[in-house]
Amino acid sequence: MGDALRELREIIADVAALRAADAVLGWDQETYMPAGGAAARARHRAALARMAHERFTAPRVGELLDALRDREGNAPDLEDLDAQLVRRTRILYERARRLPPNLVQELAHASALAVDAWRDARQAADFRRLAPHLERLVALTIEKAEHLGYQDDIYDALLDEYEPGMTTAEVEQLFAGLKARLVPLVQAVAGAPQVDDAFLRQPFDPQQQWAFGMDVLRAIGFDLVRGRQDQSAHPFTTSFSQSDVRITTRLRADDWASGFFATLHEAGHGLHAQGIPPALDGTPLAWETSLGVSESQSRLWENVVGRSRGFWEFWLPQLAERFPQQLAGVDLDRFYRAINRVEPSFIRVEADELTYNLHIFVRFELERALVARRLEVRDLPAAWNAKMEEYLGIVPGNDAEGVLQDIHWSMGAWGYFPTYTLGNVLSVQYFAQAVREHPEIPAEIRQGRFDTLRVWTQERIHRWGAMLNAAELTRHITGGPLDSGPYVQYLEEKYREIYRL
Amino acid sequence: MGDALRELREIIADVAALRAADAVLGWDQETYMPAGGAAARARHRAALARMAHERFTAPRVGELLDALRDREGNAPDLEDLDAQLVRRTRILYERARRLPPNLVQELAHASALAVDAWRDARQAADFRRLAPHLERLVALTIEKAEHLGYQDDIYDALLDEYEPGMTTAEVEQLFAGLKARLVPLVQAVAGAPQVDDAFLRQPFDPQQQWAFGMDVLRAIGFDLVRGRQDQSAHPFTTSFSQSDVRITTRLRADDWASGFFATLHEAGHGLHAQGIPPALDGTPLAWETSLGVSESQSRLWENVVGRSRGFWEFWLPQLAERFPQQLAGVDLDRFYRAINRVEPSFIRVEADELTYNLHIFVRFELERALVARRLEVRDLPAAWNAKMEEYLGIVPGNDAEGVLQDIHWSMGAWGYFPTYTLGNVLSVQYFAQAVREHPEIPAEIRQGRFDTLRVWTQERIHRWGAMLNAAELTRHITGGPLDSGPYVQYLEEKYREIYRL
Repeated sequence: MGDALRELREIIADVAALRAADAVLGWDQETYMPAGGAAARARHRAALARMAHERFTAPRVGELLDALRDREGNAPDLEDLDAQLVRRTRILYERARRLPPNLVQELAHASALAVDAWRDARQAADFRRLAPHLERLVALTIEKAEHLGYQDDIYDALLDEYEPGMTTAEVEQLFAGLKARLVPLVQAVAGAPQVDDAFLRQPFDPQQQWAFGMDVLRAIGFDLVRGRQDQSAHPFTTSFSQSDVRITTRLRADDWASGFFATLHEAGHGLHAQGIPPALDGTPLAWETSLGVSESQSRLWENVVGRSRGFWEFWLPQLAERFPQQLAGVDLDRFYRAINRVEPSFIRVEADELTYNLHIFVRFELERALVARRLEVRDLPAAWNAKMEEYLGIVPGNDAEGVLQDIHWSMGAWGYFPTYTLGNVLSVQYFAQAVREHPEIPAEIRQGRFDTLRVWTQERIHRWGAMLNAAELTRHITGGPLDSGPYVQYLEEKYREIYRL
Repeated sequence: MGDALRELREIIADVAALRAADAVLGWDQETYMPAGGAAARARHRAALARMAHERFTAPRVGELLDALRDREGNAPDLEDLDAQLVRRTRILYERARRLPPNLVQELAHASALAVDAWRDARQAADFRRLAPHLERLVALTIEKAEHLGYQDDIYDALLDEYEPGMTTAEVEQLFAGLKARLVPLVQAVAGAPQVDDAFLRQPFDPQQQWAFGMDVLRAIGFDLVRGRQDQSAHPFTTSFSQSDVRITTRLRADDWASGFFATLHEAGHGLHAQGIPPALDGTPLAWETSLGVSESQSRLWENVVGRSRGFWEFWLPQLAERFPQQLAGVDLDRFYRAINRVEPSFIRVEADELTYNLHIFVRFELERALVARRLEVRDLPAAWNAKMEEYLGIVPGNDAEGVLQDIHWSMGAWGYFPTYTLGNVLSVQYFAQAVREHPEIPAEIRQGRFDTLRVWTQERIHRWGAMLNAAELTRHITGGPLDSGPYVQYLEEKYREIYRL
């Protein structure tokens, strides 16, 4: 059994190297790669993805997993890393075996080309440049879902990749509950006098923006010896090991908040990646599993912490030192209300905390319709605009601020969007638990101290890597099920106060 | 036969993807990787190198090459790319098959760790931090040479990797001839009044340095859509395809020339990589073969063009616009003599054109002695200093400016150094041929125009990729053998004029 485990670990190390290499190529593609590199990059990444898949799904892996069945047991202890490794590997192996290697390679190749086309199409605000790529991706995604299999809904097969253990029906139920409370709240806010955030719409020197973001990164404990920040069009986080975690942000000369909250968001993901125990590194136990849990970590820092009044008690004076002109006469209350201004808008990643979920509802419903063949790609822009009007009451002026804004579908990430709202829900549920266990956290945040919260997230969340799905982790932390109650209560209290409702 | 060729090309495409991925990881390691990433990076690169080696040396490749023996023929036409591909693949396959996969992986892993130790050791000027790594690398390198096999000299086996077709005896003969002419010339220069280059030792704003370097890169035709420049401690060139070529430079606030000539040097390599025909891309026909030929391209731009009087007729006024204070009152003659100042110095990559080769003689003789076990690693610093005194008449004050300055041995690149001097020789021999065919080139350079020269190098050198070794290419271009005559004549004329001998 020792030999089988050793051999399994060797194969996994090769797969991990191929995955890490692909991640580095992906990071480079978004940050520094010259345009001429796109075609070869697409070929190389497709080949790496296929080789990783081939190696991970080789019959030998199945034999080793069979030989290790006794070692795995039925419900392995969380401290028994070997047993956990075998269990997690078997789950991924069985899933991956359902996908033919050619399909994996075709998806990787089509996605790489689509991402380049998406960049071009978005630049030109011309959906037609992306449409043929999306059609190909919808077809390949349906093929993938059919290979993976499902009981009730083809979307279940896709969702399971990003949110294991969760069903489409559960998402629908969660979303229905949120809609019932959030839609009236958004309407109430819309009826109240609008918050003034004009001072945020001034020129902010990008170098000073960058420097402030780095100050905050250091303060919250993002380890710059084990990671770095760069710039890219679409902020993201990737990790090549728990000791090499890359986050990106974007700097806009006339919009400080956009880049700063992107930094905080990605830093939350980055802390998660840096918090994976070294013993799990380079194994499937370190590979992302529940994206809802991942998103709970980014939202925790971006919104629950970063858009709280307490956070800015400490940081507003620091920010004002860098931007004395822009922030002249702006007190904490005005600043806090400005960064939490609610307004229906076109771009998801720049949406306020409250309307953000409505953007998710739009995407969830459209991607379900596309993979169910209830909607054609060519009709997608019109359908997008109709949903935007239905949920947010506004219609994009062009496709760049509409259907072309997200990279996800071009990347082949279908079934991904609902995890964003799940992350919002979990971020508040987990923060509430942290404060229950450490009532000093809010006071510490007001003093610019983040160690208690960060260590809590590491010890209660990050340390488990991929061993628990969202429901299991939530039960492990809180003793109860996933609960949107704290999230809705948080939003209602926060925005009723801000909008004096 | 068509099927065999197709299958061979598929395998090669996978190997090319693994090599490209490794190259991206290597580029990142030198440019942006945080320190924490080193350990995992070493593991990942070692795994990629082993997988590429395993795939390339799989018995199936041998079977395919056997099946394609008729297709290859005996002396395939340069225009017959399929035959050339089979020929080149067979040569590399037969060589690679001699190395056990474990040895390849051990070398890759030991090198990655040694490079990190080297960085640390150089920083601390402490050879002991590197010594155990070098001992391991010497042992592995000897093992490698024994597997590769050789007739007269163990060093032949190593040299052949970087300079196929060339023997240690030929290098010795070439170097003996150069020593006979260059040592007296250096002595004559040393006896002449020294050139004044004090104006080069002033603060030069790094941003302006960068901008000027980019201007020249664009002017000589380095394609920034198919490549980019970044900064690293040790300038280098790497390419992920002929459409994605990365060069690096370093900027020193008090030494403009160091960074600028590094840019030109790497740009020469970069033009070479961008000049590989797309049809060869992603195959062994595009993989570097003769490093002497490669170096001829970097030296052509760095020295033969970049340190010529004619080049600065156009560029000195441009430079003076960026640095009006530093270059106030500096005329072309004074500038030209300053950038060609000859002075024995410690650091090879900053040595002047004339003494540079003496640095190579030092390294060639020491690495030969190490792999022949005539010298122990622990005695290397003393031996280094003795050779420096013998050839250059100076002794390094510490190991950072002595034996620790080069990355090559830590990278596992043994047998590499002689190709630098070979490149110097070829750069002048090839330039002389270009001017023979296009007498207008010198006048164009004086006008800041480089197309004729660049296109000539592409059409006569780059286009052949790895199809010809140094001797074959030289005969193809000049109709004759490698000849150090033009190089020695160039140096003698140039430096006798500069030093008024």
